[in-house]
Amino acid sequence: MGIAFRKYHGLGNDFILLDNRHQPEPLITPEDAIQWCDRHFGIGADGVIFALPAQGETDYTMRIFNSDGSEPEMCGNGIRCMAKFLADLETVETGSARPHYRIHTLAGLMVPRMEPNGEVTVDMGIPWLLAEEIPTTLAASDSKVIDVPLEVAEKSWQVTCVSMGNPHCITFVNDVAAIPLETLGPQFEHHPAFPKRINTEFIQVVRPDYLKMRVWERGAGITLACGTGACAALVAGVLNGKCDRSATLELPGGNLHITWNEADQHLFMTGPAELAFTGEA
Amino acid sequence: MGIAFRKYHGLGNDFILLDNRHQPEPLITPEDAIQWCDRHFGIGADGVIFALPAQGETDYTMRIFNSDGSEPEMCGNGIRCMAKFLADLETVETGSARPHYRIHTLAGLMVPRMEPNGEVTVDMGIPWLLAEEIPTTLAASDSKVIDVPLEVAEKSWQVTCVSMGNPHCITFVNDVAAIPLETLGPQFEHHPAFPKRINTEFIQVVRPDYLKMRVWERGAGITLACGTGACAALVAGVLNGKCDRSATLELPGGNLHITWNEADQHLFMTGPAELAFTGEA
Repeated sequence: MGIAFRKYHGLGNDFILLDNRHQPEPLITPEDAIQWCDRHFGIGADGVIFALPAQGETDYTMRIFNSDGSEPEMCGNGIRCMAKFLADLETVETGSARPHYRIHTLAGLMVPRMEPNGEVTVDMGIPWLLAEEIPTTLAASDSKVIDVPLEVAEKSWQVTCVSMGNPHCITFVNDVAAIPLETLGPQFEHHPAFPKRINTEFIQVVRPDYLKMRVWERGAGITLACGTGACAALVAGVLNGKCDRSATLELPGGNLHITWNEADQHLFMTGPAELAFTGEA
Repeated sequence: MGIAFRKYHGLGNDFILLDNRHQPEPLITPEDAIQWCDRHFGIGADGVIFALPAQGETDYTMRIFNSDGSEPEMCGNGIRCMAKFLADLETVETGSARPHYRIHTLAGLMVPRMEPNGEVTVDMGIPWLLAEEIPTTLAASDSKVIDVPLEVAEKSWQVTCVSMGNPHCITFVNDVAAIPLETLGPQFEHHPAFPKRINTEFIQVVRPDYLKMRVWERGAGITLACGTGACAALVAGVLNGKCDRSATLELPGGNLHITWNEADQHLFMTGPAELAFTGEA
């Protein structure tokens, strides 16, 4: 006992947040993180996030140790939790929080912005659309992959492919609840058309500004939420003339609001980050 | 925020413990417990345990809300955590803890005893051995079921059946690690010889005082530990002349020590109960 922590989640993607602002080395090791993340013997989480001192022209540095001890570059749900954590710490200490945080990550500078309703907006960058950028063999390497047929499970699906740094294959359906995701997901993921495998999103357009989504994540299977998947789905919806450039995505873990900025092509994701409890371990 | 809790586990079977000694009603509702036990949105646990005021000639009352909101009569791993929790509270308050606690449960009086090494011993009662008590159709209703053949997955297994209040079917094997539990477990559980279904234990006798066990729990599948299963396994081992009346059972979640008292036929289970962290929610 002795290290205080706060536990947050973004759409059920949950993290142990540590106040590591007063020393540059993480308070616990990757081996500790594996133990802390164990849901029966430890605290239980998808990862541990460290709020570290600033580097260069930033306010803070974020590092993440996953529940398997690996260190990802960045995490969309995680950085929302990081921003909320910093806002909560600063509010306790000074009575107010900043409107945004310049955070150094292994993926570069991220600037989460606090919304008046307590949600957090993150710039998710620009989508990549050429077949070689996805990568996929579904079109010539310098062509986009929009509404193209793909044979999976003895059925032809019309798919659109988008990379958000990671590859996504999007299919529009009438009813996402009726999709047998646990059997279809692995067949999309390992389809020979996707040499680096693929994340798969099934999207139901309820209204042009409201989409329902279910996702099969590459390497992780069915998850409650996938931020890059929600961004890719909105891009696919716009490219197919099925939705607005700004829409709410309803995921099993909750809602995200995605906007695809016309001027600079950047995607902005707004979503919740919630404190579950505080503790000491 | 506002309710302090302590999180304990017994062999990975994990509980949120609440100090409810100053009011007779549980501090949270079964609906709250469902939320608190959620491993992504809440605190995460198999159940919430309330340390309530004494009833009659007891020291305290224990109630449990499971993660699905149901209320079980008792739980072997849970009552060890309850005893450790009470010892920790009393040590903070008075500097010392009692050697045992008389705890009122829905299954009657339980008296967990604190061991010098910090583990906790619980009287698990007596085993029931007649076929009608299990229940099973593998023998005449007033006969024991010891080393009887059972056909499962096109193979004949020699099984022994024991009830610890719940039904168990025990099979001795050379190597528990080699057993395909996820496919065999459901076939034992739903075998027509067991009208109320069955918990299934595969046991490897390493030495007469050291057994390895893997368990498929009725309704729960593969679990890290099952206290009644460990007791049933030791009884089966003694009945088959394969082990001592006192032995260590190695389960995936850790070790239990089981003793089958010759004089009164009671089984005593000794195992760990460990604090994982403290918190407030």
